[in-house]
Amino acid sequence: MPALLYVQTSGIDTPERLYSPFILAQTAKAMGIDAIIYFLGMGITVVKKGNAEKIKMGQFPGLKEVMDQAVKAGVKLMVCEQSCQLISLAKGDFVPEAEIVGAATLNDLVLEADGTMWF
Amino acid sequence: MPALLYVQTSGIDTPERLYSPFILAQTAKAMGIDAIIYFLGMGITVVKKGNAEKIKMGQFPGLKEVMDQAVKAGVKLMVCEQSCQLISLAKGDFVPEAEIVGAATLNDLVLEADGTMWF
Amino acid sequence: MPALLYVQTSGIDTPERLYSPFILAQTAKAMGIDAIIYFLGMGITVVKKGNAEKIKMGQFPGLKEVMDQAVKAGVKLMVCEQSCQLISLAKGDFVPEAEIVGAATLNDLVLEADGTMWF
Repeated sequence: MPALLYVQTSGIDTPERLYSPFILAQTAKAMGIDAIIYFLGMGITVVKKGNAEKIKMGQFPGLKEVMDQAVKAGVKLMVCEQSCQLISLAKGDFVPEAEIVGAATLNDLVLEADGTMWF
Repeated sequence: MPALLYVQTSGIDTPERLYSPFILAQTAKAMGIDAIIYFLGMGITVVKKGNAEKIKMGQFPGLKEVMDQAVKAGVKLMVCEQSCQLISLAKGDFVPEAEIVGAATLNDLVLEADGTMWF
Repeated sequence: MPALLYVQTSGIDTPERLYSPFILAQTAKAMGIDAIIYFLGMGITVVKKGNAEKIKMGQFPGLKEVMDQAVKAGVKLMVCEQSCQLISLAKGDFVPEAEIVGAATLNDLVLEADGTMWF
């Protein structure tokens, strides 16, 4: 199965950048493509507990609903451990679906993926 | 022929991010490389009619001129349909060279490209 | 040896986006992966002489120290010539480790790399 890696480097101060990875990753799963969303830098604020609930754009459903649909479709969520240190967030601060992983992981994921997308 | 995909996720509020994909894509065509620029999220404002005309940086020609040169060189422009809904723009709002395509398209384009660039 | 290309398109006004490429590239070298960081658009301000010294986030060492460690580990730094013109910076304005290269270079680097990351 081909695999796509989506990397969210932008945070909740740019809500218009947050829908794309979830929508594209969910679409990927429906196309028979494996999908991981990796949260890096300020991007980790998107999977901080309680934040997605606050975001809703135009006619779109709230971001939390879009995130939940992506997870239900089998999309994996990963959070960069070093970014947690950079922004002073702890493991317990994130939604339970988000797995905390080390910096070396992203290098490996990028090398293994059939394509990457950066938001 | 190798193919490069350029994705513009930033909008006209960050003019310093807008020249690169056009210049790189035009350079790619001159190098015998196929080139598509895909506009996503706020990036779609770049190909909204009348916007590129307003942007000019330093000694560089205006962005509209750089866009026209890229199109003339054979660079294809694509616009994400879901982003149009997110930002409430309609098909007729864009320059005629820009083709509106669905979300699944980007997953396919990324998988097919020999390289991708994100701005 | 596999090769990863990191591209910094963000400038010193977004300090939280600046650590990742240096940390990931240094980690890559430790993993036996070749690593280049390419500075584009406002990203070139990161390798302007004197700028990294001003940036420090949370418990992390200053950005200059992180940059120096990456260079010492064998990470190569490249600066986009067209971006220098766009932002009106001259060759002598950059740290000596940064090599100025033309626009065609990035197309080639992306095609040759085993993976790319965009910040």
